[in-house]
Amino acid sequence: MTYCIINNHLVPTENALISVEDRGFRYGDGVFETIAVHKGVPYQFDWHMARLIGGLGAIKIAFDVSSIKDLCRQLVAKNGVKSGILRIQVTRGIGSRGYLPDPAHPKADASFVIETSPMPAISREPVALWQSHYQKISARALPVQYKLCQGLNSTLARLEAAENHCADALLINEHEQLCETSSGNIFWLKNEKLYTPSLDCGVLAGSTRAALLRLSPCPVVETDAGIDALAGAEAVFITNVVWGALAVGALFPQNIKWNSAGIAGKFHGLILADRDTYSDEQSGEWKK
Amino acid sequence: MTYCIINNHLVPTENALISVEDRGFRYGDGVFETIAVHKGVPYQFDWHMARLIGGLGAIKIAFDVSSIKDLCRQLVAKNGVKSGILRIQVTRGIGSRGYLPDPAHPKADASFVIETSPMPAISREPVALWQSHYQKISARALPVQYKLCQGLNSTLARLEAAENHCADALLINEHEQLCETSSGNIFWLKNEKLYTPSLDCGVLAGSTRAALLRLSPCPVVETDAGIDALAGAEAVFITNVVWGALAVGALFPQNIKWNSAGIAGKFHGLILADRDTYSDEQSGEWKK
Repeated sequence: MTYCIINNHLVPTENALISVEDRGFRYGDGVFETIAVHKGVPYQFDWHMARLIGGLGAIKIAFDVSSIKDLCRQLVAKNGVKSGILRIQVTRGIGSRGYLPDPAHPKADASFVIETSPMPAISREPVALWQSHYQKISARALPVQYKLCQGLNSTLARLEAAENHCADALLINEHEQLCETSSGNIFWLKNEKLYTPSLDCGVLAGSTRAALLRLSPCPVVETDAGIDALAGAEAVFITNVVWGALAVGALFPQNIKWNSAGIAGKFHGLILADRDTYSDEQSGEWKK
Repeated sequence: MTYCIINNHLVPTENALISVEDRGFRYGDGVFETIAVHKGVPYQFDWHMARLIGGLGAIKIAFDVSSIKDLCRQLVAKNGVKSGILRIQVTRGIGSRGYLPDPAHPKADASFVIETSPMPAISREPVALWQSHYQKISARALPVQYKLCQGLNSTLARLEAAENHCADALLINEHEQLCETSSGNIFWLKNEKLYTPSLDCGVLAGSTRAALLRLSPCPVVETDAGIDALAGAEAVFITNVVWGALAVGALFPQNIKWNSAGIAGKFHGLILADRDTYSDEQSGEWKK
């Protein structure tokens, strides 16, 4: 049996329930984090907590994160997670029926849910992307650098990609700048430099993106580029906590192709090695 | 005790719970309707059902609405609602942890919740609007004409308005065209014509907006206009199912003022009269 934690209570996941009045359910009014667990240790945990705090601030949810690390430690141990995903979601709780939260409501405290799940098996075969007709939500409309519980844009783009037999969707913003895929950040290698869209383009400040900015042996340029920039790339790959760095073999409907597997594999290896090092360093902290 | 209906089951609202795995809670992956109940009859019910069906289609949720009217009838009777709000929310249910829904998941069926609440008491005093620094989410990013469970843009704009001592926020789109407030549509009267932003500007196809398009004694122009269009207006008002037509007295930080109360009151009267007529016509249907 798998457990999760809802508002400090450990409950079997099958009984993990939240009020229909929670603003998370009504409006997607919250933020979440998904964290790779490797050798029983959540990778870059402090980085994720910093992003969570940033997201809570950006959407003005008052929530004290100080107990979260201990609760995550308990849940990872209880579920016996060695390799998997740790997910933390914080929503604005109950508060009002309209958009304006009512901090005086007796149930206005934020809700939180911590869950774990197995690490999905991912083929390392290069994937195909579909350029979505859905535009990325603008950074002027929402603080999109955080993982907001507003997943409909990504869901619609991903469904469209699947309808076109592609693994993921590539989205551009209102200025026709490259952003990211529905579920990950994008990188490309050209002339021995690694490029990725800058946060100013309205992309998620992804944790694997952050790891690669730190780990890359070649310079990383955060850029605002159009989709044409990909045409001349030597290799393209996409990143998130599940994929690591995953080779992109083609972009449709343009039908651009790349031999990305070798280069993507090297960057993927850097991430895996860093997870090993991190787990070794932090294991005392997580298994105490 | 107040009841609601979750997936065909009548339950006390205090026990109304949904799985934390529901994509409504994870991602705001759903649509909803709020319907004014007048004299025990949900106003423009068939119109709302048509918009609900449109929204479900736009976000690709498979859901058969054929039982919803009967369930709403049962709930309105059970809760003894004479004047109030009927809310219907449909989400994609459980299906996968990532953005891509898994239709083969054993719990992939859509979830739905039907609730009622009292009609809030609304002062008829003219309200002040605050021009939000949050841009409206583009119609190129999401099908914003439907009531999506993606309320964070509206919530953030509304919070910003409240911080500036205004009742609601006015939002413009990426082309600096007037859209709507966080919670309603906007209208203005100029030279004996009534104006409102066209759906092409990326506004909600509001039910009270639709009623006024039908009821207005003067021509209604659906337009794409900048915020300057408001400066020369004789009166400005905002609409939703709770407010009806509510006078706008001022816009900040521009500090533009209007004497909107008289004209807004006339349009509000048209809506109330139409609700009376509708309730009288439909009462047999709803009380059978």
